[in-house]
Amino acid sequence: MSSQAEGHSLHISQQFNVELEEVKGHMMEMGGVVEKQLADALESVVTSNSNLGLKVSRDDDEIDSLEMQIDEECSLIIARRQPAASDLRLVLAIIKTIRDLERIGDESSKIAKMAVKLSEEGEIPSLFVEFKNIGAKVQRMVSMSLNAFARFDAEAALEITKADLEVDMEYRSAMSSMITYMTEDPRSITRVLNILWALRALERIGDHAKNIAEHVVYLVQGKDVRHEKLE
Amino acid sequence: MSSQAEGHSLHISQQFNVELEEVKGHMMEMGGVVEKQLADALESVVTSNSNLGLKVSRDDDEIDSLEMQIDEECSLIIARRQPAASDLRLVLAIIKTIRDLERIGDESSKIAKMAVKLSEEGEIPSLFVEFKNIGAKVQRMVSMSLNAFARFDAEAALEITKADLEVDMEYRSAMSSMITYMTEDPRSITRVLNILWALRALERIGDHAKNIAEHVVYLVQGKDVRHEKLE
Repeated sequence: MSSQAEGHSLHISQQFNVELEEVKGHMMEMGGVVEKQLADALESVVTSNSNLGLKVSRDDDEIDSLEMQIDEECSLIIARRQPAASDLRLVLAIIKTIRDLERIGDESSKIAKMAVKLSEEGEIPSLFVEFKNIGAKVQRMVSMSLNAFARFDAEAALEITKADLEVDMEYRSAMSSMITYMTEDPRSITRVLNILWALRALERIGDHAKNIAEHVVYLVQGKDVRHEKLE
Repeated sequence: MSSQAEGHSLHISQQFNVELEEVKGHMMEMGGVVEKQLADALESVVTSNSNLGLKVSRDDDEIDSLEMQIDEECSLIIARRQPAASDLRLVLAIIKTIRDLERIGDESSKIAKMAVKLSEEGEIPSLFVEFKNIGAKVQRMVSMSLNAFARFDAEAALEITKADLEVDMEYRSAMSSMITYMTEDPRSITRVLNILWALRALERIGDHAKNIAEHVVYLVQGKDVRHEKLE
């Protein structure tokens, strides 16, 4: 610190960095909570554990309040610190990412509700195999997208877009198994639809993980890749 | 203008207001495009018009690029104008709203794709009655939410949350009609599922209209009502 003025501006900018790191940390914590919700939701389906299912659908409130709290932190940072360029991109990317995380929590709680219904109305274990596979892939996508954000890694983020295409393919194949199952045993329709909704929720979670990855690319490259076709 | 300095600051602030009004205008225009997409998507289903359906799913790109363009405008305003308090809330509400509008466009194009499938695989007119009713309600919700934003009307916005509860109820009743239909005629399963997906997309559109309404309340009252229970 060669002069007092420099020391002061260094102080302000360090303080600002601390705030940015803090809000990013809160977002990562929220990510951890959402990952746990998703893992519990998947387990509640494949083990037909309705208690766990009920717990997951209750815990959704915690995620909602985390989102509102972090969103508020971000607004305050913009209003007080007036960040520019990459700092502003970071704050805006966080605002968008927590919205996707909240939606992942929401879809997880829908999956958990299906677990409760399945344990009441009867499960169909043979249809769980594809559900489990897709679930594991989607979980990986969510965790990859959070890691990519933590490390500002745009390349890892692009990998997720590819993983999403795989999930979409497996989803379509699972859908047609389920339609066959229902056609052969119409009494199973209500139960199969429960698994089908859970599967649909998983597909949505994959989409949100992809969104997060796209926020990372925007953040790192300053370029919006959301609606670009993958080459 | 009593002095040159005042004139200058007035000039800056007028210029800023012009920019804010402009970006809000662009958002409303995007809203108009999205409303048109939704109307066309609904028509393509109930009239089994596969050409219209194909057109709607193609036009989704226009909405995507509007979203990116307005998002960029908002970032520039924040970076250059460093808005505070209600101006900042307006810009952040626009950023969130265009995301919901983009999702509404996306869901509309899913509905249009179902119209194409239905016209190929055969329609089930008796199931269109509920679809049409729900469609009309959801359309009204979207248009109400845009009007509420245009007039910064938080009370109108709260009305939409109530309309969403109605749509959810009708959705559940439509769902059970469709399950009955499939159970009685298992050969119809694939076709009924198409209507079911379209219905699901409508329910999602209702949710996004509700989100927009909540952005309006946040904007007007400075209060986040997203996860509050309706009283």
